Amino acid sequence: MPSTMPMCHIEPAVLAGRMTGVRSSAIRDLLAVTQRPDVISLAGGLPAADGFPVSELRRIIDRRLRSRPLELLQYGPTEGHLALRQWIALDEGRRHDRPLPVDRVLVTSGAQQAIDLIGRVLVDRDVTVVVEQPTYLGAVHAFSLYEPRMATVPVDADGLQVDVLADLLAAGLRPRLVYAVSTFQNPSGATLSPERRRELARLADHYGFWIVDDDPYHELRFEGAAPPVIGTFTDRVIRLGSFSKTVAPGLRVGWAVAPTELVDPLVRVKQAADLQASSFAQPVLVDLVSDDRRYQAHLARLRTIYSQRADALVVALASTFGDRLDLSRPQGGMFVWARFTDGTDTRELLDSALEAGVAFVPGAEFWVGDGGQPWMRLSYATNPPEALATAVARLATAVADHRPKSSNRAYAATA
Amino acid sequence: MPSTMPMCHIEPAVLAGRMTGVRSSAIRDLLAVTQRPDVISLAGGLPAADGFPVSELRRIIDRRLRSRPLELLQYGPTEGHLALRQWIALDEGRRHDRPLPVDRVLVTSGAQQAIDLIGRVLVDRDVTVVVEQPTYLGAVHAFSLYEPRMATVPVDADGLQVDVLADLLAAGLRPRLVYAVSTFQNPSGATLSPERRRELARLADHYGFWIVDDDPYHELRFEGAAPPVIGTFTDRVIRLGSFSKTVAPGLRVGWAVAPTELVDPLVRVKQAADLQASSFAQPVLVDLVSDDRRYQAHLARLRTIYSQRADALVVALASTFGDRLDLSRPQGGMFVWARFTDGTDTRELLDSALEAGVAFVPGAEFWVGDGGQPWMRLSYATNPPEALATAVARLATAVADHRPKSSNRAYAATA
Repeated sequence: MPSTMPMCHIEPAVLAGRMTGVRSSAIRDLLAVTQRPDVISLAGGLPAADGFPVSELRRIIDRRLRSRPLELLQYGPTEGHLALRQWIALDEGRRHDRPLPVDRVLVTSGAQQAIDLIGRVLVDRDVTVVVEQPTYLGAVHAFSLYEPRMATVPVDADGLQVDVLADLLAAGLRPRLVYAVSTFQNPSGATLSPERRRELARLADHYGFWIVDDDPYHELRFEGAAPPVIGTFTDRVIRLGSFSKTVAPGLRVGWAVAPTELVDPLVRVKQAADLQASSFAQPVLVDLVSDDRRYQAHLARLRTIYSQRADALVVALASTFGDRLDLSRPQGGMFVWARFTDGTDTRELLDSALEAGVAFVPGAEFWVGDGGQPWMRLSYATNPPEALATAVARLATAVADHRPKSSNRAYAATA
Repeated sequence: MPSTMPMCHIEPAVLAGRMTGVRSSAIRDLLAVTQRPDVISLAGGLPAADGFPVSELRRIIDRRLRSRPLELLQYGPTEGHLALRQWIALDEGRRHDRPLPVDRVLVTSGAQQAIDLIGRVLVDRDVTVVVEQPTYLGAVHAFSLYEPRMATVPVDADGLQVDVLADLLAAGLRPRLVYAVSTFQNPSGATLSPERRRELARLADHYGFWIVDDDPYHELRFEGAAPPVIGTFTDRVIRLGSFSKTVAPGLRVGWAVAPTELVDPLVRVKQAADLQASSFAQPVLVDLVSDDRRYQAHLARLRTIYSQRADALVVALASTFGDRLDLSRPQGGMFVWARFTDGTDTRELLDSALEAGVAFVPGAEFWVGDGGQPWMRLSYATNPPEALATAVARLATAVADHRPKSSNRAYAATA
């Protein structure tokens, strides 16, 4: 099924589907390996265990189960628990510098589900979807089930290269949606600059595509000021958020703030998908986040944890690898995105790394099509500073032991 | 898009899709109306509030959050929490009279999600799906998003009329799957007889289709003996279960026991759909159901509640309506399926009923295509016996007040 668009960035969807299927398994295998107690995993995006508000949750849940258990245990509305939707509307409204009506908020079973529901409503075989390169694999995986044409736009230090997108649009690309992790992108850590946000919004208005603004790391900023959200500049945004990174992923609660015309279609496919998000988790989250003073203190504590861990990882990498590794200190989020300047293929390095007792995700896993070989994503979220230092020492051992297979491969190719 | 199959039971999928979209809204509107405190709702399938094991859950959750909070709050595997999958494999194995390997069990975000995941993996535009007539609307809604051809087979007191299915198969119907709520069917309350189970299994083996054996009401049997599950007779079964009716729907935990070849595709689409079911709910359920003595006592209590409520509703209906209403006393589950012998159209009756302060779901809402007008589904699950008696008295008022609109409609049709 070749693309009808004469552009190098377009990937046939069927290829993408097959590819991500395989990759999905590869990452699952990798995550299985990293369960081994002798491996320090910088591979997963698991939030810091000591950042979970355990005692708060215990207190809230016990009180709720004593006073109003029914609300936690019975079926609830597909759109979500009203009080939680109200809080989300308020919180998102603050970021948009204008009030957001509660009926634009849909609570989802994690933000991953929101991506999938958008795929169901907006994506089909004759539809083009633009994703970032590199990008969050879970989104590509979800969209590819609806078999769109997939186009990619590269990311640099200021996020999605909106000028490249503009060129593609001018040349005839007509995407239904553009998917972007706008802040502390997964995997690159880049944040879309204010100018690019404004320009992306203008393009969406002009060409009539939807922007999916996936923003789970928004609150994990430990340095710098947050740029305005894309929805400040246009109404053609579906904005996604999550409590997975701020409270706990095990609760499985995320949200979409959708344009009015998309709310009802999203609610209908949500109903078919799983009826509703957890009745149990939603009122508990309301109690947790509504206590603003405490919640802000919790977020501040989280930011301190991640800031310290980011420092520990970046310092260890810089002092160990020097110029051999190109990276920048993140201002928030969970990941360091690093490139071997000597062209080391990180997929090949991974075996040695696992042998040395450390795991990461090779850059190629975030690429649609070929690419990303010298990159790797290192998460500092899960492990405390000492473990991060040990992990980098092990990585140095792996790099020292590593023998590139490329010569063998070249040999095989000519054999 | 006319069907290519020359059979009256085949419905074009696009029609089914549009229709269920509308109906879905109608039911949502109905459920909204039934939130009114002056309406006693026999419409929803909400479990008995006094059947929730609240104090057990409080105790278990508090202990878990004190001793091992991480397991409840962190990301977990897509397949589900291992200990819960082990319990499900054991419990389902008992029903199958043979051990079931744990790797055939996938934990889902409620059984509704399992239906949807099956739709993704098995259903497409060129696929025929057989559903019962009447049937669980949520399944039709989920399947119809994948735009199959939809065929229906009628249900009688012994469940799906397998001989009708056999005739359709002999005439050339080649479904990819047959969806059936095998025990205490929603809405009819019928249970598929042992002979029909065996014959359905034989047909599945012969023609190579999958049986989706949706069985959420299995444990709610308060009378009679359970027939062997369909999976006793064939391996071509995907069996669905749920904790929504036995513990609490607000936790959103169900499961699929799938044939080995379907497990991996289901896990992959589950990963794209929402990564995983609730980490929080799964270990809590393990603790609850593993305490076998207590859990069996809980189920026994549930059965008593539902048995008393079923009696209350059936007795009130029989004494109030006599021969005007045809119904049978259920042996389990949540619903009484009743037919007005004078041909009253229950969709028309509903307005008067809501005015009188009682709600039910008209039979037509469970029909693919036209039909079901004199039927209604009355749930006895949600309300205590006194409220059920009051509800039936109100229904009698509604019936007395009701003036059929059919003459108007006939007039409109000829105007």
